[in-house]
Amino acid sequence: MSKRSRFQFLRVSVGLRTPGTPGGCRTGAVQSRRDMALRLARLGAGPGWHALRSDYGQLRAWSPRGASARVRQLPGTAGTQSRRGLGHSPSAGGGTWLGTGLAAALAGLAGLAAAAFGHVQRAEMVPKSSGARSPSPGRREEDGDELARRCSAFMSSPVTDLRELRKRPEDMKTKMELMIMDIQAQVCRALAQVDGVADFSVDRWERKEGGGGITCVLQDGRVFEKAGVSISVVHGNLSEEAANQMRSRGMSLTKKDGKLPFTAMGVSSVIHPKNPYAPTMHFNYRYFEVEEADGGTHWWFGGGCDLTPTYLNQEDAVHFHRTLKEACDKHGPDIYPKFKKWCDDYFYIVHRGERRGIGGIFFDDLNVPSKEEAFRLVKTCAEAVVPSYVPIVKKHCDDSFTPQDKQWQQLRRGRYVEFNLVYDRGTKFGLFTPGSRIESILMSLPLTARWEYMHSPPENSKEAEILEVLRHPKDWVH
Amino acid sequence: MSKRSRFQFLRVSVGLRTPGTPGGCRTGAVQSRRDMALRLARLGAGPGWHALRSDYGQLRAWSPRGASARVRQLPGTAGTQSRRGLGHSPSAGGGTWLGTGLAAALAGLAGLAAAAFGHVQRAEMVPKSSGARSPSPGRREEDGDELARRCSAFMSSPVTDLRELRKRPEDMKTKMELMIMDIQAQVCRALAQVDGVADFSVDRWERKEGGGGITCVLQDGRVFEKAGVSISVVHGNLSEEAANQMRSRGMSLTKKDGKLPFTAMGVSSVIHPKNPYAPTMHFNYRYFEVEEADGGTHWWFGGGCDLTPTYLNQEDAVHFHRTLKEACDKHGPDIYPKFKKWCDDYFYIVHRGERRGIGGIFFDDLNVPSKEEAFRLVKTCAEAVVPSYVPIVKKHCDDSFTPQDKQWQQLRRGRYVEFNLVYDRGTKFGLFTPGSRIESILMSLPLTARWEYMHSPPENSKEAEILEVLRHPKDWVH
Repeated sequence: MSKRSRFQFLRVSVGLRTPGTPGGCRTGAVQSRRDMALRLARLGAGPGWHALRSDYGQLRAWSPRGASARVRQLPGTAGTQSRRGLGHSPSAGGGTWLGTGLAAALAGLAGLAAAAFGHVQRAEMVPKSSGARSPSPGRREEDGDELARRCSAFMSSPVTDLRELRKRPEDMKTKMELMIMDIQAQVCRALAQVDGVADFSVDRWERKEGGGGITCVLQDGRVFEKAGVSISVVHGNLSEEAANQMRSRGMSLTKKDGKLPFTAMGVSSVIHPKNPYAPTMHFNYRYFEVEEADGGTHWWFGGGCDLTPTYLNQEDAVHFHRTLKEACDKHGPDIYPKFKKWCDDYFYIVHRGERRGIGGIFFDDLNVPSKEEAFRLVKTCAEAVVPSYVPIVKKHCDDSFTPQDKQWQQLRRGRYVEFNLVYDRGTKFGLFTPGSRIESILMSLPLTARWEYMHSPPENSKEAEILEVLRHPKDWVH
Repeated sequence: MSKRSRFQFLRVSVGLRTPGTPGGCRTGAVQSRRDMALRLARLGAGPGWHALRSDYGQLRAWSPRGASARVRQLPGTAGTQSRRGLGHSPSAGGGTWLGTGLAAALAGLAGLAAAAFGHVQRAEMVPKSSGARSPSPGRREEDGDELARRCSAFMSSPVTDLRELRKRPEDMKTKMELMIMDIQAQVCRALAQVDGVADFSVDRWERKEGGGGITCVLQDGRVFEKAGVSISVVHGNLSEEAANQMRSRGMSLTKKDGKLPFTAMGVSSVIHPKNPYAPTMHFNYRYFEVEEADGGTHWWFGGGCDLTPTYLNQEDAVHFHRTLKEACDKHGPDIYPKFKKWCDDYFYIVHRGERRGIGGIFFDDLNVPSKEEAFRLVKTCAEAVVPSYVPIVKKHCDDSFTPQDKQWQQLRRGRYVEFNLVYDRGTKFGLFTPGSRIESILMSLPLTARWEYMHSPPENSKEAEILEVLRHPKDWVH
C-alpha cells in the first residue's frame, strides 16, 4: 500500500504460534440447558439446540488452527516497548508482544452503558511500565499448566497477571476475562484466515488506575477494509457521576470507605469487509461488578451482535439471526425475541428514520437468574459470533460487484459513522471522557465513507430493498 | 458519473440569467467607518481598508457575470413542483424554480446557537403549496423596480414575498434577507465559475410554521467535491425550551400574549474542493429577533468563516486571515483578534486535541453598538467570503498531487466529520430536533472521508506540519 511507503509501520513480524489446544477455548462451554427465564423474561425452559442448516455447515469445521497473526508496532505510540510474552513458544513464557503504552478504560466498547465509563473520567494515561508486570517468574511456574496452555492461544497474555487469575479460578472476573480473551483470539484468527493476506496488529495498553486492554486491528486487507477486535479489563473506584447514573437505573449502592470499587471488562468488535456483498458485523460482550459496604456485589452483563449489510440477502439474514436465536434458545425460548427487539430499538438512526442494519441481539443490565447462568448465556452468544458471521463473509468476499455497488456501500458506511458518532452511548461517553483511548473508541469507524446530498435510490432497486428493511425491521426467524 | 446513470436526477436545465446588475448586490455596502467599538470590545475607531496584496489581486476582478447555475429537481422529495420565478427573464417574473417541498427551520446553519433552533421542535413538514405564495401579481408590479433588479441576481426568489419586503425596506429583517440572498448568489456564482463544469442544484423548501429556505449544492464537480450554500428565513413562536436557553444566556424575555414571536435567518456554507492543496472553507452569518410584550425586540447577529487546509500553505493562511482582518478592521481594530480567538476556541475537536482547521473568525450574540452598525459589520464579513477564499481555491485547484496527498486529505475529512457530528452545536441541535431538514444539516459533510487506526504522520513531514498548527493555533496577521 502506498500509505505504508510514506507512513512506514515499524513491524515486528512474529507469527503467533498456532495454539496447541485450540479446543481449549471451548472449555466450560454450556452443557446444561438451565432455565434463564425466571426473572429475565418470565420464560419456561427453552427448546433444544437446532441443527445448523447444511449450507452453512462449514462453520462447524471452523477452527483457529492455521490462522496466523503478527504483532505489529504502530507509529506514533508513546511508551512502546517489546518483550516476550505468552503465545509464542511451546511453553507459556515465549513470544513477543508490543504495548502501545496508552492507558484507557472500557471506552472502546461500543454500546457499553455510560455508567461503565464513569471511572475513566479521572484516569490518566501512562506509558506501559516494564515494572508494572513481571512476566517471567509467574510464567515459569505455569509451564505445562492448563491456564498457560489456554493462554497460549490468545492474541496476547491476559491483562490480569496469571498468578492472580490462578488464585481465583472460580471468580467470575477470571472466567469472563479468559472468555473474552478466547473470543478475541477466535474472531481474529477466523478473520485472518479468511483474509489470507493482512494481519492483525496487536496493541496492548495499560491504565494508570488499574487494568488495560488489547486492541487488535486488521486494516486494508484482501477481504477486510477494517476489522477491529478489542478487549479491556479495567478496575478502580466509580466516579460520583457514574454512581449517580447507576442509581438512576434503579441500583442502590452503599459506599465502602467512601468508595465504590468496580471492575469492568468486555470484548468489542466491528468488522468492515471490502466487498459490498459481505456485510459489516459488530459485537460486544461485557461484565461489570461494583463492590458495596456490606461485602455484597452488584454485577451485570451486557452485549449483543448485529449485522449491517449493504444489500439485503435473505439467506444471510436468516442464517445470522437463526444462529443467534439458537444460541439464545439454549437458555430459554423468549430470550431471542426480547434481545432481537432490543437490538432493533437500540441501533436506530433517529434523524434518518432507519436502523443501522438488519439487527441481531442486544441486551444490558442482565443479572438473572444467577451469575453463572447469565455468564453461560453470554458465553454461548459470544461463541456464536464466528459461526453466525464468518460463513457469510466467506461466501461473499469474492462476489463480483460494480462501482455503483461500491458507492452504495460507501453511502451506507456514512450512515454507520452517523450512528456511531451521534447516538452510540459507549462512543459518545468515551469521546467526552478525558483519558479514554480514542483510537480504541474510533476503531469502529469504517476505513472510508461517503455522503451525497439528497441521495435516494430509485423505487424497486436493490438499494431501495435494503432501505425498506432498515426502515421496517423484519422477523427473520419464526 | 456512474451514480447518475443509476440514480437519475430529474434535471430541469434552466440556465439562470446572468444578472443584469451584478453590482447591485453591493448596494448598501459599507461606506462609512462607524465605530463598532463602544460596547463590543471597548474599541476606538478602526484603521482603514488595507489594499489587498498583489498576488491576490484577481479577487478584485471577481464578478458574478458569466457564472451559470441550473435548477435541478432532486429525487426523493415530496411535494415538489416547478413554477416560474425571479431571476430567469429580464423582467422580474421569469424563470423556473423547484421547491423540494420539505419544510424545516434554521437547522442547516452550522454553529447557530441552540436557542435559534428551539422553534423547529414542533415544526411539521409541509409540501410547498402553490397557494402559499402568489408569484405573479406582486411581480408584475415590480417590473423595473430596484428590488426586482436586485433579486434577479439571486439563486431563487427570496423566501419572503416581495410585496412584504417592499412594505418594510428599512426593517433589519428585509435588509438581512436580501443580504444573505446576495451572499448566496455571490458565492454560488463564484464557485460555479471556478468549477466550470458542475452546476448548483437549487432546492427551495418551506416550513409550515412560517418561512423556509433555499439550499444550493454543487456535488462531484471538476474542482469541488461538495459545495453547499444554504439560506433560511424562518419565523414563529419560540419553544419554551428555546426561551429557557435564551434566559440562561442572560436575556430577560417577557411573553406577549403567552408567546415569544421570533424571526431567524442566515446563510451557511461548507465548500470541500477535490484537490488536497485547495482547502475546505465554511462560513455562516445569521440574525435573530424575538418580540417582547412591551413591543421591544431582542436581536443579535452571529457568524464566522474558517479555513480547513489539508496541508499548510503560509501564504494562503495569511491571505485568508488578512482578508478577514481587513473586513473586521473597518469596524474596529480589536474585532478581528477577538473573533479570531473565538474561532480557535469553537472549532476544537476535544478528543483529538486539534482544531478543525487554521481558524478564521467566529462570533455570537452580537447586539452592539447598534443594529445598523452590527449589520454593517456582518455584511462586511460576509462580503469578505469570496475574496478571502476564491483566490486560494483558484490558485490550487489544478495543483498536482499524489495518491498519498489525497489519502491525507481523506483522513482530515474524517476529522471534519468528527467535529460536525460530535461537537457542532447547530448540527447536533438539528439532528435531535424533529422536523428539521436533515439534508440541509448534513450538507456540511464531505463527499468522502477516511479513518485509519492509529494513523500518525512521520516527524518533519508536511502532514506533521499542519497537525502542529491544528494543535497550536498561530497568529497569521500581526
